[in-house]
Amino acid sequence: MRVESTVGLCFAGFGNVGQGLARILVRKERELAERWGLNCRTVAVVTRTRGAAVSRDGLSLAELLARAERGEQLGTDRITPVEAALLPQTDVVLDVTPTNLKTGEPGLSVTRAALGSGRSVVTSNKGPVSLALEELRELARERGACFRFEGSVMSGTPSLNLAMESLAGCDISHVQGIVNGTTNYILTRMEEGCEYGEALAEAQEKGYAEADPSGDVDGWDAAVKAQILASVVLGSPISLDAVDRTGISSITRSDVEAAASRGRRIKLIARAARTAGGVSASVSPTEIPLAHPLAGVGGATNALTFTTDNLRDVTIIGPGAGREETGQALLSDLIAVAAAERACGRFAAKAG
Amino acid sequence: MRVESTVGLCFAGFGNVGQGLARILVRKERELAERWGLNCRTVAVVTRTRGAAVSRDGLSLAELLARAERGEQLGTDRITPVEAALLPQTDVVLDVTPTNLKTGEPGLSVTRAALGSGRSVVTSNKGPVSLALEELRELARERGACFRFEGSVMSGTPSLNLAMESLAGCDISHVQGIVNGTTNYILTRMEEGCEYGEALAEAQEKGYAEADPSGDVDGWDAAVKAQILASVVLGSPISLDAVDRTGISSITRSDVEAAASRGRRIKLIARAARTAGGVSASVSPTEIPLAHPLAGVGGATNALTFTTDNLRDVTIIGPGAGREETGQALLSDLIAVAAAERACGRFAAKAG
Repeated sequence: MRVESTVGLCFAGFGNVGQGLARILVRKERELAERWGLNCRTVAVVTRTRGAAVSRDGLSLAELLARAERGEQLGTDRITPVEAALLPQTDVVLDVTPTNLKTGEPGLSVTRAALGSGRSVVTSNKGPVSLALEELRELARERGACFRFEGSVMSGTPSLNLAMESLAGCDISHVQGIVNGTTNYILTRMEEGCEYGEALAEAQEKGYAEADPSGDVDGWDAAVKAQILASVVLGSPISLDAVDRTGISSITRSDVEAAASRGRRIKLIARAARTAGGVSASVSPTEIPLAHPLAGVGGATNALTFTTDNLRDVTIIGPGAGREETGQALLSDLIAVAAAERACGRFAAKAG
Repeated sequence: MRVESTVGLCFAGFGNVGQGLARILVRKERELAERWGLNCRTVAVVTRTRGAAVSRDGLSLAELLARAERGEQLGTDRITPVEAALLPQTDVVLDVTPTNLKTGEPGLSVTRAALGSGRSVVTSNKGPVSLALEELRELARERGACFRFEGSVMSGTPSLNLAMESLAGCDISHVQGIVNGTTNYILTRMEEGCEYGEALAEAQEKGYAEADPSGDVDGWDAAVKAQILASVVLGSPISLDAVDRTGISSITRSDVEAAASRGRRIKLIARAARTAGGVSASVSPTEIPLAHPLAGVGGATNALTFTTDNLRDVTIIGPGAGREETGQALLSDLIAVAAAERACGRFAAKAG
């Protein structure tokens, strides 16, 4: 018997990822309710540049998407993201604000406020996870809320939830993989004959790399993911500074060819491993033998290999970015939150 | 706050898989309790040829493993597997009896009895899943019990739980992969220069293939897994007869070489796909382009690619067999059952 209950959503941010999730929620509304037990009501959407909209009875996501598409304001309500997170009708806050690795803002304040009030938070924003994971998890535990962030590593391709749920009972001692699609695209194109500069320009044209590509090519994005994997999957929180980081900007075509002549491929590998004293984490260009599953991962695809005690190596391969692909990460977390809260009757109590 | 509760286990069978699980439970007892909230008490172990042992206060798995190792009887208690499943101290039945695809026995009777009495069942036995999935799921639903069988496909490498939990919210339209390690080993050896007969003999020597290899080489094992994937992951129950099945025994070295000359590898691919009328499922030797993640899966390793709406393709690669590897499948299911039952306070109530 399925208990019907509706989850009140507050979107903090409504850019690519927020819209990706909204598209899925609109397209699959009935399937999500019938098959996954997820019934949502969007209570608030708050953005920095496109205004805010609030309705205790529920906003139309289809209408909000249409406005975003047309470049219009989403609404004229005057409300801050923190105020929206704390509305009585908000059950779960979706933090899809832009990542800021220095301050974590604006996501960090919204997340603190929501968890502090016992509301759950689902996010794809690496900032708060990188800067304040332990504090936020402790806050969630104290207040009986959920804090989930599957989308912070490989978009919707299961990584954190795979390790913590599907692989429950395994001890993971080592995780390594390709967690930045832009650099993997560049390295793949270099194998196909491009010079570094040419491959980077192509990645920028395709929208994979930004005008300032340093976040990708200098390994920052991969380093944050290595930090999150070390902290969550290996259970030893470390800071971003502790991740040893080398990017791909000094890799030349002759390096790529020399590796190929040894039956290897150069990949930008993020890794985290348990050590005697805790964990170590790093990002560096690494020669991978062709027979290893990570060697075959080309283009913008991502992959992680988990080394476990009970199961030896398990590798997962899938998309690492994309609007709906990251929306899917938020969706799977949202379904898990709804199931957990249903189990303790929280939404039902609020609805009653 | 973690609620302490102890799960009373009944092992129906104690062969390779049962012993694999038992080894993990002994080796990781403290970690399983502290990190995964799993505290077990083994109430009964019942085997066909090595006797049975029962203790309401808990048997020593270490002692039972030592007896099995020495080829001794496990105990002299006179009890049937069904009686053991229905002991008041049994909370979860581990059906690790041998697979019988014609009758499902003895696992089917044990599973029916356990679920019918509201006890959960965790299994790696393909027989009952293949023959009576719908009946057993309905029984579990009616009685508020769990019926989980991750180990029936790819041992502990997450397949069913990956699709149903980590990929929650995705609609999977198609799943295909390498789900039989023996045939993949033979095909890999043929690529390396062996004739079919030679590769088969080698697989038999290594214990991958049985004296009568037809279950593997004629595709029966892969066909049951395709049936289970169609029924569970695509949500359309079909019978084993409905799986279109071709094995590898007619593949020659020249077929393998011809495929290689086209940049392809021959793999025994199990697949299930949604169709206009429901689902279709098949097993057949298939040429896979080298760039596809399944092409790189060599030896006894297994892999599955799920094609989804929200996330396009996601591939998982890992071991497909092995004592502790299959034990891990049972363990992850057991942790999920314990969490579910803890959520509704069932074990606590029994313990009180």
